[in-house]
Amino acid sequence: MDALVSLSKRRGFIFQSSEIYGGTGSCWDYGPLGVELKQNIKRVWWRDYIQRRPDMMGLDASILMHPTVWKASGHVDNFTDPMVDCLECRRRFRADKIDETPWVHHCPATKGNKFTIPAGEPCSHCGVTRTPVEEDASLTYLRPETAQGIFVNFDNVLQSMRRKLPFGIGQIGKAFRNEITPGNFIFRTREFEQMEIEFFVNPLETVEGRPADEYWHERWIEDSMAWFRRYGLGEENLRLREHEADELAHYAKRTADIEYRFPIGWSELMGIANRTDFDLKQHAKFSGKALTYYDEERKEHVVPYVIEPSAGVDRALLAFLADAYREEEVRGEKRVVLRFHPELAPLKVAVLPLLKKREDIVRTAHAIRDELSKDWSVVYDDTAAIGRLYRRQDEVGTPYCVTVDVQTVGDQAKGEVGDGKVTIRDRNSMEQIRVPLEALGSVFRELLGGAAWASVAGRFERKGDG
Amino acid sequence: MDALVSLSKRRGFIFQSSEIYGGTGSCWDYGPLGVELKQNIKRVWWRDYIQRRPDMMGLDASILMHPTVWKASGHVDNFTDPMVDCLECRRRFRADKIDETPWVHHCPATKGNKFTIPAGEPCSHCGVTRTPVEEDASLTYLRPETAQGIFVNFDNVLQSMRRKLPFGIGQIGKAFRNEITPGNFIFRTREFEQMEIEFFVNPLETVEGRPADEYWHERWIEDSMAWFRRYGLGEENLRLREHEADELAHYAKRTADIEYRFPIGWSELMGIANRTDFDLKQHAKFSGKALTYYDEERKEHVVPYVIEPSAGVDRALLAFLADAYREEEVRGEKRVVLRFHPELAPLKVAVLPLLKKREDIVRTAHAIRDELSKDWSVVYDDTAAIGRLYRRQDEVGTPYCVTVDVQTVGDQAKGEVGDGKVTIRDRNSMEQIRVPLEALGSVFRELLGGAAWASVAGRFERKGDG
Repeated sequence: MDALVSLSKRRGFIFQSSEIYGGTGSCWDYGPLGVELKQNIKRVWWRDYIQRRPDMMGLDASILMHPTVWKASGHVDNFTDPMVDCLECRRRFRADKIDETPWVHHCPATKGNKFTIPAGEPCSHCGVTRTPVEEDASLTYLRPETAQGIFVNFDNVLQSMRRKLPFGIGQIGKAFRNEITPGNFIFRTREFEQMEIEFFVNPLETVEGRPADEYWHERWIEDSMAWFRRYGLGEENLRLREHEADELAHYAKRTADIEYRFPIGWSELMGIANRTDFDLKQHAKFSGKALTYYDEERKEHVVPYVIEPSAGVDRALLAFLADAYREEEVRGEKRVVLRFHPELAPLKVAVLPLLKKREDIVRTAHAIRDELSKDWSVVYDDTAAIGRLYRRQDEVGTPYCVTVDVQTVGDQAKGEVGDGKVTIRDRNSMEQIRVPLEALGSVFRELLGGAAWASVAGRFERKGDG
Repeated sequence: MDALVSLSKRRGFIFQSSEIYGGTGSCWDYGPLGVELKQNIKRVWWRDYIQRRPDMMGLDASILMHPTVWKASGHVDNFTDPMVDCLECRRRFRADKIDETPWVHHCPATKGNKFTIPAGEPCSHCGVTRTPVEEDASLTYLRPETAQGIFVNFDNVLQSMRRKLPFGIGQIGKAFRNEITPGNFIFRTREFEQMEIEFFVNPLETVEGRPADEYWHERWIEDSMAWFRRYGLGEENLRLREHEADELAHYAKRTADIEYRFPIGWSELMGIANRTDFDLKQHAKFSGKALTYYDEERKEHVVPYVIEPSAGVDRALLAFLADAYREEEVRGEKRVVLRFHPELAPLKVAVLPLLKKREDIVRTAHAIRDELSKDWSVVYDDTAAIGRLYRRQDEVGTPYCVTVDVQTVGDQAKGEVGDGKVTIRDRNSMEQIRVPLEALGSVFRELLGGAAWASVAGRFERKGDG
């Protein structure tokens, strides 16, 4: 983990939040490479689950919601992590910890002086004892999950989009929990981003002989597991864990966690819960609005069941980062490499001039960067010798480097004409090929579109490894 | 504006937040089409400004920051919109309005009973008068702008990314202000999303005979104006307005607003400010850390000046929506159409079977949707007659419709073989062409990549307008 934290800071992936002020507890900022990695994870998730599937739609609900949402959801009463504002000290507490925490009391009997008083004891000046936070319509909570934004919009989506069950609504957004758990990096943070799907199914239907909710629950578990494998997580680092009856959340019929072998040990990467009709029924009860679906075949109104595949963006990022990290020995030297899936890699291509003093080489390299960056995230770097530049790109997981050299542009002084070819180096194999400038775009469209290096490299002239 | 609000709700662009509970003041949720539109705006902004420019990088700082950030920035002391939590009633107030608002007092002298007391008056039971919120290290603010997340990370980015001035750091993220301004839809909201750039320049340098900060300020104003025009805002609906000396923010040397003619009148769409070295100096002062850049040429440390092009995502979305909205008369009937730029349109293509009872037509239409949706946001719809389906897609701004008909697939019963061509209809001109199935992908790559309809349509067989 230390290696990941150190690399993340040094290379612009992840910084401690407000670091110059000593940090903000359990909050992290994503630097120039981290934000690209994070966006790539969100982009492929959205593309795979929302864009490509005909049974899915997206949503983006606001973080601030009506406080009754959290009464209906059960968070205020039942859940372990609601965010409550303390009346006296204005700190936020987990509701279940409120009686264990000393409180800072602004005592009116002493003109508002502040005293820190042990939990459960009254103030000796005014006699007041802290009480749990009362209900108050003006209290705004920071949402502890994005899911409820989907449930309260169920009818709006149904009315505007005319979909038939089953269908799902997916959302990516920030959520907040009062987690103070130092030492686990971005695994558990106070502010985090979720990628959640609420997949609505008709409980009156059966699929392949099973109740629709149970069938779809299985499907989503398989799909989710396959998704993480597709983008690079090792089979041996993933496992499924069923929640025991006594750890199931109050709304769940069954929950399965996908666990990943993080540097801190096996822990939850993602949960896939069968929330039944709990949430829609609760919101119908608290709002007085019918949240049902009309089953045209059976001529009756039904409250859909909900399967919820819920993943954390930050936690997924940590898994992809940890799984990609390798320390290898290459020609007697240590090489640190992030073997990111090309779609996740923050930079797709680095363009490197072999001689930064040759104006024609530098100009060609800049032109290549400008052209390729229309389609991909591409960087130009000339601040070191080529071996070092390669290692720098390996360390941040850039799948391909393009090198421009004297052979490319020729040598006017000597009357030599260049061959118009550049070197492409593959991060994983370190193999190199010579590719004509005009073919660069189509070659990268293949490679970054998923083609195997070997199948592309075979068509071009090989060069020694880089 | 009413037409936009109504269309937005009916067609799944924008819903009132927590609507089933009577709404959350000045908060809105983005529905299935709204979230695509919003993501497209953010995507092209990031691509144009962060990905394609060699002098830019991205960042994603957390919403929760160290409270001293807001002391240093001047928000707690000077700004008009800090978010403060009232000690007594736990509501959030604008600091400048705190004395005008009645307060809800939990009186300890009467066992915590609640009284609403006019502003400035003491409680008659315990004698306490509400005081402004005191400094408290445990108070967490919701950030009122994303900018400070960039400033406090300046040195982290500098150290990890080794860039030379000038360079910029861009960020997209949520911010919060206590705005309660009903009736202006998503123009001014409590929770909103910003697209901000802090562009750092060397104040010791001149460019084209002018101080670098003034030169770059001009460049960013021109670039920003051109960006909004490129994605469809009408020239006649855009204007530039210079801030007068007495309205300049405390940090600004000069600020220019790009104003748009919204349905509510001319208002700020985006601001481009010269923040000088104010923020870096303030954070250096409050944190005790040097936030400087080493000018290798002049061999001295310098505090960069900052140009800040700052735009609101929601406000940009409202402008794009308003500008795209047209009511037209077509063959004696009213047609509502959103003339979105193709890159912004939430759906790129709708695939429509002409006869939903013909299984071969429906199957072909589904296959087209599945294929095209690998690359774009594509919808299948068979829930009405073709004329009505076209109008529905016009109303949400889908640039192209693909129709599958009997001619496409032929008629097995009659022994007729289909021609394997489908109809593509252009939203703006309503012209139609017949295109072979196997050419669909490349045709849409052209059209959605920016090619003019006429230049593509000319290569194919014309059909009557649709």
